[in-house]
Amino acid sequence: MVGKVYPVMRPESHTLARRRGRPGHSLDSLLAVAVDAFIERGFEATSMDELAGRLGVTKSAIYHHVPRKDELLRLALDRALDGLFAVVREPGAVTGPAIDRLEHVVRGSVRVLTSELPFVTLLLRVRGNSDVERAALERRREFDRVVTGLVRLAATEGSVRDDVPPGVVARLLFGTVNSLTEWYRPDGRLSAEAVADAVIATAFSGLRTT
Amino acid sequence: MVGKVYPVMRPESHTLARRRGRPGHSLDSLLAVAVDAFIERGFEATSMDELAGRLGVTKSAIYHHVPRKDELLRLALDRALDGLFAVVREPGAVTGPAIDRLEHVVRGSVRVLTSELPFVTLLLRVRGNSDVERAALERRREFDRVVTGLVRLAATEGSVRDDVPPGVVARLLFGTVNSLTEWYRPDGRLSAEAVADAVIATAFSGLRTT
Repeated sequence: MVGKVYPVMRPESHTLARRRGRPGHSLDSLLAVAVDAFIERGFEATSMDELAGRLGVTKSAIYHHVPRKDELLRLALDRALDGLFAVVREPGAVTGPAIDRLEHVVRGSVRVLTSELPFVTLLLRVRGNSDVERAALERRREFDRVVTGLVRLAATEGSVRDDVPPGVVARLLFGTVNSLTEWYRPDGRLSAEAVADAVIATAFSGLRTT
Repeated sequence: MVGKVYPVMRPESHTLARRRGRPGHSLDSLLAVAVDAFIERGFEATSMDELAGRLGVTKSAIYHHVPRKDELLRLALDRALDGLFAVVREPGAVTGPAIDRLEHVVRGSVRVLTSELPFVTLLLRVRGNSDVERAALERRREFDRVVTGLVRLAATEGSVRDDVPPGVVARLLFGTVNSLTEWYRPDGRLSAEAVADAVIATAFSGLRTT
């Protein structure tokens, strides 16, 4: 499953666009190759030499973009996290009944996951082994708190079941969402939209018809 | 999250019991220590020297139990898989309405996951990098086929929604179950039973009350 080559994605991030380097060796393409390598081999096991080899450039061409390997990790994790935080700031996530806001956040998170698949996959593997990883984990926890807050509010409003603690509901819900990284493939039979619909339907209304 | 010390579990497996070695250095305790190390550092990165160090024994004491490191991996993965396959052979999984059989399998899988947490955690990280890993993946796929079959049958019987393909329902459902390895802790506030209840309630009946 891991080791699959993902299509190179074009980040819209302002930061990345601003820092683009020479043609063909942009920070974008460097980041895409680095993330694939980190997923396949692990961050620690991936050397700058290996990245240079995969890119067909010298190490100094990489150092043109980033001072250290962990800066690549930070940029990659921030790309996933920036996408998720953008969702919880969208109008649909901050106004209206909490159940609708929650649904908006789940749908938006599935959209980020499917469009930035390698970046979110990498984020979900972070265990806190360095300052960069710990900062990413702290941002993930902050995101979880926002989701838990929405679940709690929806339960208060009477639209979400209150027999399961809000924190547990939030974890189960995003456990379902995050598990998409295990099998969703952009070139597969299911569109990202169909996947989001399936998650929303099963998670919010349940499997049972009876 | 990873690196947590799990309590040593006592396998009931016939194979393991039969092969127990000297007192204090049983295959059980060897396997528990090995699985913790594989989760923390990865299978490839864990040497027999490291395992011997963690156990406070010589390498030959380990070779008394297993001829090679990958035999430890195979035993650990089979322990998780044997537990899951035992569930799908239980009477509750093979007789009665498919929706009840499906619920039985989900509840039993949560029970296996919570009682054999490190073993299931290790199983879910397997990517097919060796014959042992590929054999484990094939058994996982066989388990997934059983679950998908139950979902399909329940949809035919009219008790499970049929607007989402059975394979997708099965993946989402076990995505939720498997995500428990990310946060469930045996010494935490939630009992294994409460976790199973939460999964069944949210997955089968949904989050919405309205």
